[in-house]
Amino acid sequence: MSDVRIDDLPVRDELRGKSPYGAPQLDVPVRLNTNENPYPLPEPLVERIAERVREAARNLNRYPDRDAVELRTQLAKYLTDTSGHEVGMANVWAANGSNEVIQQLLQTFGGPGRTAIGFEPSYSMHGLISRGTGTGWISGPRNDDFTIDVTAAGKAIAEHRPDVVFITTPNNPTGNAVPRETVLALYEAAQAAKPSMVVVDEAYVEFSHGDSLLPLLEGRPNLVVSRTMSKAFGAAGLRLGYLAAHPAVVDAVQLVRLPYHLSAVTQATALAALEHTDVLLKYVEQLKTERDRLVSELGAAGYEVVESDANFVQFGRFEDSHTAWQKILDRGVLVRDNGIPGWLRVSAGTPEENDAFLDAVRDLQRFVGDTPTPPKEQST
Amino acid sequence: MSDVRIDDLPVRDELRGKSPYGAPQLDVPVRLNTNENPYPLPEPLVERIAERVREAARNLNRYPDRDAVELRTQLAKYLTDTSGHEVGMANVWAANGSNEVIQQLLQTFGGPGRTAIGFEPSYSMHGLISRGTGTGWISGPRNDDFTIDVTAAGKAIAEHRPDVVFITTPNNPTGNAVPRETVLALYEAAQAAKPSMVVVDEAYVEFSHGDSLLPLLEGRPNLVVSRTMSKAFGAAGLRLGYLAAHPAVVDAVQLVRLPYHLSAVTQATALAALEHTDVLLKYVEQLKTERDRLVSELGAAGYEVVESDANFVQFGRFEDSHTAWQKILDRGVLVRDNGIPGWLRVSAGTPEENDAFLDAVRDLQRFVGDTPTPPKEQST
Repeated sequence: MSDVRIDDLPVRDELRGKSPYGAPQLDVPVRLNTNENPYPLPEPLVERIAERVREAARNLNRYPDRDAVELRTQLAKYLTDTSGHEVGMANVWAANGSNEVIQQLLQTFGGPGRTAIGFEPSYSMHGLISRGTGTGWISGPRNDDFTIDVTAAGKAIAEHRPDVVFITTPNNPTGNAVPRETVLALYEAAQAAKPSMVVVDEAYVEFSHGDSLLPLLEGRPNLVVSRTMSKAFGAAGLRLGYLAAHPAVVDAVQLVRLPYHLSAVTQATALAALEHTDVLLKYVEQLKTERDRLVSELGAAGYEVVESDANFVQFGRFEDSHTAWQKILDRGVLVRDNGIPGWLRVSAGTPEENDAFLDAVRDLQRFVGDTPTPPKEQST
Repeated sequence: MSDVRIDDLPVRDELRGKSPYGAPQLDVPVRLNTNENPYPLPEPLVERIAERVREAARNLNRYPDRDAVELRTQLAKYLTDTSGHEVGMANVWAANGSNEVIQQLLQTFGGPGRTAIGFEPSYSMHGLISRGTGTGWISGPRNDDFTIDVTAAGKAIAEHRPDVVFITTPNNPTGNAVPRETVLALYEAAQAAKPSMVVVDEAYVEFSHGDSLLPLLEGRPNLVVSRTMSKAFGAAGLRLGYLAAHPAVVDAVQLVRLPYHLSAVTQATALAALEHTDVLLKYVEQLKTERDRLVSELGAAGYEVVESDANFVQFGRFEDSHTAWQKILDRGVLVRDNGIPGWLRVSAGTPEENDAFLDAVRDLQRFVGDTPTPPKEQST
């Protein structure tokens, strides 16, 4: 049977010849490729996780709380405390990573015969999960400097009348935040065209210079803000994503969620982390400082850099970004090649990791002679 | 905004007027409604879970092993040890509950424009997840005694040419196992008709009098066996489902799985449980004894009972099964009304829980006068 391959199975036609999504998981000294938080959880939190999981394990023969009420209550409290906007348990839904949140939203509001739009380059899973749920994907426009042109984006919405609109802010992989007024204008455009659901993906918002868009939820039942504990909470391994929206949206996604989708150990671990929010947000402050340093030192080294509100920085430009990626990797530093010609993305690590990265990219110029192309804006 | 309801949102048409799937989660003394294992995990295993999760938490800022290699290796070892059929890591895939395994299979082999069949009554999530993935659902035939008629089922497969065929053995909610020859005949029918994928759902197989159908995988790349740690491992709260199949099937589902779908704490907890397989399988033996006692005492009390290879028993018949369900609940015992007219399902609990259940159903007859209808077979 060893000669049977995927294409010999009765898989869906659109899966033929495809390969699984995912960054290379390479074992190198400095991994700055998946926007992970470089700081391990503090030891008191590790102990608290073990304690809460031990407690949950004593009841593990029973199904978990299907509605995750305690967890949603604490997530709502965190959102209220950090945004100043009152969020209640009924406004919050949680799942196994924001990817599953997005999948549930697309199963509810997208799906066969419907479409979703994103303004690319952006988080590529929006398009991939759209396709995975049978939702037609529309690649909306973005300016060369990675900002969103309200007129062009609004025109695309009016033309395609998508059922779901994704706005990632701060944007991944480019790092820039989308202004509040742009989000508002696109929400209005989406309502005028269809009406459609607008999903504001705030996975990186804790690292932003600006505020969360949570207050926009007021009076806008077709707006959803999605979040994750992977980045600011330093818990990528936990796979806990969540959303805030009108309670009717939370009711609606429960029509498609797999029953008992969120395990008792996941709920227990997330609850432990939420008890330690203050300490974790201090790491966020350190990372913001390091992120700003990366922006400024990359700029000083002659690279073009996108202003970043996230825990990563998009930099370039390279004639051949894949070769540059490989040369940085040869120095023991793994960054991300998102397939955007001329650009690479580096996650903010610890000061030592960032030093190693900065040394590698300076050498890239100095010794390999692979100097970046001058930024477009200055090349005229 | 409090007046906004699900139907005011742009949800998919087929979701309008629906309610979420899920058994009532009621707080009663004896819960025998969701086929949970009544035995809490032994304390040494609870400690081992805390230990492994503590270790995992120290690295929680990093994404989990996307391919869950260690976990799949240990699951393969468990399957090999208990079935005598050699299963390797490359044959195994794991997800958040067998529901997610089934969802991934349907996204790969079903989906829009494709269909799936099951022989009902059976595990209702097969149909629900089919609909959730845009797969057309075909309700295949089953005899009045809940066995599958090979000719009738084969005819349905030949007529509808489904892309995915579900065979649940032991069947849920009826408890009876499907004979090996029936599964083989339906596999052949499915290959002749399309060819299609055949998913044998063995969620309850550890409680069976007979053997697992894992050896049938040999030479049948379109066959999948799905399993769960919810029942035999006493870990419903963990949400760990898995499948065994040809490595090409495992490759194929990775095209649709959400990246990093399985958290590091889930992987750590499952690995701890797999270290304690021997103890957990002793509970399974106790539950099999109790299950057999339920079958025999319900029969002695005049009820019609389906022979069970699972950790639950289907019994009846009632003129009004919902009223009977309520009367049993009034006695503090929660059983399951699966909507099969005339029947209820009870999970095997501890000896004390089963005694409480048996008292309640005997009283149901004695005092309420709601004697079961004589079994069909004896009524002629």
